[in-house]
Amino acid sequence: MPQELRAVDWTGNSLALIDQTVLPQRTETIEVRDVDALVSAIRRLVVRGAPAIGAAGAYGVALALLQGEREGWSTAEVRAAVARIRTARPTAVNLMVCVDRVMTRFDEGLAAVLEEAAAVQREDVEANRAMGAYGADWLLKRVGVDRPLRVLTHCNTGALATAGWGTALGVIRELHARGCLELVYADETRPLLQGSRLTAWELAQEGIRHRVQVDGAAAGTILRGEVDAAIVGADRVAANGDTANKVGTVGIALACAYAGIPFVVAAPTTTVDLATASGADIHIELRGEDEVLEWGGVRTAPADSRGHNPAFDVTPGELVTGLVTERGVLAVAEGELPGERLR
Amino acid sequence: MPQELRAVDWTGNSLALIDQTVLPQRTETIEVRDVDALVSAIRRLVVRGAPAIGAAGAYGVALALLQGEREGWSTAEVRAAVARIRTARPTAVNLMVCVDRVMTRFDEGLAAVLEEAAAVQREDVEANRAMGAYGADWLLKRVGVDRPLRVLTHCNTGALATAGWGTALGVIRELHARGCLELVYADETRPLLQGSRLTAWELAQEGIRHRVQVDGAAAGTILRGEVDAAIVGADRVAANGDTANKVGTVGIALACAYAGIPFVVAAPTTTVDLATASGADIHIELRGEDEVLEWGGVRTAPADSRGHNPAFDVTPGELVTGLVTERGVLAVAEGELPGERLR
Repeated sequence: MPQELRAVDWTGNSLALIDQTVLPQRTETIEVRDVDALVSAIRRLVVRGAPAIGAAGAYGVALALLQGEREGWSTAEVRAAVARIRTARPTAVNLMVCVDRVMTRFDEGLAAVLEEAAAVQREDVEANRAMGAYGADWLLKRVGVDRPLRVLTHCNTGALATAGWGTALGVIRELHARGCLELVYADETRPLLQGSRLTAWELAQEGIRHRVQVDGAAAGTILRGEVDAAIVGADRVAANGDTANKVGTVGIALACAYAGIPFVVAAPTTTVDLATASGADIHIELRGEDEVLEWGGVRTAPADSRGHNPAFDVTPGELVTGLVTERGVLAVAEGELPGERLR
Repeated sequence: MPQELRAVDWTGNSLALIDQTVLPQRTETIEVRDVDALVSAIRRLVVRGAPAIGAAGAYGVALALLQGEREGWSTAEVRAAVARIRTARPTAVNLMVCVDRVMTRFDEGLAAVLEEAAAVQREDVEANRAMGAYGADWLLKRVGVDRPLRVLTHCNTGALATAGWGTALGVIRELHARGCLELVYADETRPLLQGSRLTAWELAQEGIRHRVQVDGAAAGTILRGEVDAAIVGADRVAANGDTANKVGTVGIALACAYAGIPFVVAAPTTTVDLATASGADIHIELRGEDEVLEWGGVRTAPADSRGHNPAFDVTPGELVTGLVTERGVLAVAEGELPGERLR
């Protein structure tokens, strides 16, 4: 992937989003000019991945200001529009954190808001680069083998999911850049296939050797000894290290624990929510049943069957071998808890 | 499902197979008259499920005899054709066991072969009924709650997967018949969706309340306390209790162990292969990559991505709380090993 490709890009008066619902068949950009379109884009997963949603939300404050100006909104109306952006999706904390950060400069006006949103974006890329280096160092030392690593990842945590470079996929890209990566197993990540559509696309762009597998294959692949470590992102990390991430993650963590290999979460500190004591306090988004019951708009399940579609699950902190942040790696399973180390 | 519906049915001179590749959209029967067509039907999963494949293989000996008669084959040619049926799929042991059983009467001619194949089919239904009763008794006692159970299952193990009634789904049907079942979580079972297409169809036919979920959701649903027990089938059980079953099974077993709920395998003794010492000796079928990379013939992954498609995984015996057979339930995780109890 060209380094300049950005999932979220401010054009000067609108937000350009790569439409992640049509990749890899088509590479299209959607131009978002108002708050309704942004909320819809976040809900429809045109833009997805906790840090990318955070960046989109940050610029969303500017969009609300510009739309309010065009349409004669009161300050209260602009703030209400921002509140709608802030809660467009419930599980990832980055969206709320980034919107709140930009809102601290709301009273200074548009220029200040844009400056802060740009800082959010720039700092996310910097954090990802730092995570890549910390994560690669830690993993190579921890796995301790004299050959390139075979890693497994789930969902998409690359440039598309962030302001650039990637979190878990950033660590993987760093391993590749150092010549320390043999193969990536990319779980397809049902129901929306972010793994086979987006992660595989990014890996293919980078020329990184990879195999797409169904999510159910992950545990078996790990238990057969075909994987040295699993690396995933996070949508919210609680103070005790419990981690909400894409549905399917906790099964990977359990397999890693059983196989005795590292289960690594890569997430910027904006994803760590110290106000959330544990995973039990994280609200898990239940998405529409049709995502499970249909495929490309065609019903696959029987007409009268119902679906159950939690978008995330919670991995207990005791299964998180390493939490890679831009400030270093916490050995959560060994007791280095975010609530004690990151305050 | 009407009780008389049979996935595998001998018509008198051919084998009628319900085409499980087009359910639930269409209910079609394929009439198989020769060995090539049978091998293809087994490989394409027109007929699937270890016991159903076993029954199809048993009648396959009769098909080979009839075709040999029509086409003037030598006895050696008939035997060679039977050998092709016997190895049409490598992981399930039932196919080999059932073909070998019928072949013990090969020299007696067609009538004896058909008698033996019919016995295979009849005994499988009887075994399933017995497993249903043993499994329901055991589960109700083991879970020990004063309310109907919420169970999770994977792939399809019902009437479609057997000669009739079902193995794991037979236990679930028995719980339902006793008024002891609240809800079934049916994993969709990628890549071929036997769960959302076939299990949900059987459950809907029976009026059993169910929710289809992506395979990745299973572990989270279990860890959130929404499931009392998981019940799955098996394609081969080794002497030490290691169990090969549809890819995705071992992740469920790990989640059950972590949550402290029973993980139950229901399989007739024909599925137990005492000649296989452990799971390490079970050949895991690798199927075509396109099952993972495409959907309905349309590519979903990038054009240059490769896939990894193991059809099964192996669950260590120490994670198998109960192995339900037609001869009773073995507490494998507590040391009741098939190799010691079923000889």
